[in-house]
Amino acid sequence: MNYPNQIKKEFHKNINYANRGMDLENIINDTNEYLRKQDIALIYKKPTPIGVVKVNYENNKQVINKAYFATQSTLDYNGLYKGRYVEFDAKSTESKTSFPLSNIHPHQLKHIRSVIRHGGIVFLIIQMNGLVYLVNGVDIIEFIDTNERKSIPYAYIEKKGYQLEYNYNKGLNYLKYVDIIGGIDNEKN
Amino acid sequence: MNYPNQIKKEFHKNINYANRGMDLENIINDTNEYLRKQDIALIYKKPTPIGVVKVNYENNKQVINKAYFATQSTLDYNGLYKGRYVEFDAKSTESKTSFPLSNIHPHQLKHIRSVIRHGGIVFLIIQMNGLVYLVNGVDIIEFIDTNERKSIPYAYIEKKGYQLEYNYNKGLNYLKYVDIIGGIDNEKN
Repeated sequence: MNYPNQIKKEFHKNINYANRGMDLENIINDTNEYLRKQDIALIYKKPTPIGVVKVNYENNKQVINKAYFATQSTLDYNGLYKGRYVEFDAKSTESKTSFPLSNIHPHQLKHIRSVIRHGGIVFLIIQMNGLVYLVNGVDIIEFIDTNERKSIPYAYIEKKGYQLEYNYNKGLNYLKYVDIIGGIDNEKN
Repeated sequence: MNYPNQIKKEFHKNINYANRGMDLENIINDTNEYLRKQDIALIYKKPTPIGVVKVNYENNKQVINKAYFATQSTLDYNGLYKGRYVEFDAKSTESKTSFPLSNIHPHQLKHIRSVIRHGGIVFLIIQMNGLVYLVNGVDIIEFIDTNERKSIPYAYIEKKGYQLEYNYNKGLNYLKYVDIIGGIDNEKN
């Protein structure tokens, strides 16, 4: 997605809701850019869906003068890695003891089940207690289907998740664990 | 993506550029919705990327008051089918004799090469001469790499492409040919 630089800057300055968990999102975007440049994986953030109401022309260019944010019913990131379909979302919580399931929209939960059913690799990257974990979608669904609780205890995330490491040049090392949860044989690739 | 009905209507009314090839886009969107409802494939149109410049609040709701359309550097549709990564774009041309390559942005061509290299299934759905064809990305790249021409002759599309059929309930039967170009064994699925 290519914006003129000025617009890109203003974008970050003006969208308030985007600031929640902004750092994690930026880190993931930078990581994915690195992975594309190194030709390791093709993973993109989907654009935020917008419902456009009014468009005008200024200097022969279309300018949107009224629009609304719409909700994404899938996860924010998807793409292709070693021939496999990969999809995930990034979530942050301030809670220290458990991850509230209200952070995942019902549409998204349904979508996670669908991706699993169709043979894709699906997971969440969860930022919590100053650490970042990759949690397999299979383990999220397993928790929901066997518990009445409305939040996932931190102990479950520590036990089932994979703690990610950050490198200034390479970003988050999440693909290492995609290999594991996807049963990808590195010898063959 | 869920818009209030009124916005959805106004959306179609106001975005002029979207009318080019609108029918094909609508047919593909309806097809993908059918495929999701039947739990056959999870394929979505990516939202058009927007560079938001100004946001205000009206009745506690965010309203975008200035934004621009940005260009997509990938293809418009992607998703998951029988465990495989699938990506494609829909293109229409008025030309009867050849498909102008200027319809495919250089970023998109580069992306098609990348998807092939990483083991995804990638293709174009081309509407031309009142017919609709699925053309394998591999054949598009093959043509470009062995020709100096700036457009693909219709005869090449007829020869290499698969002519799609439309059914009022099921939409376009493009997955039939995804099975073929992706080498997907239907017996196993």
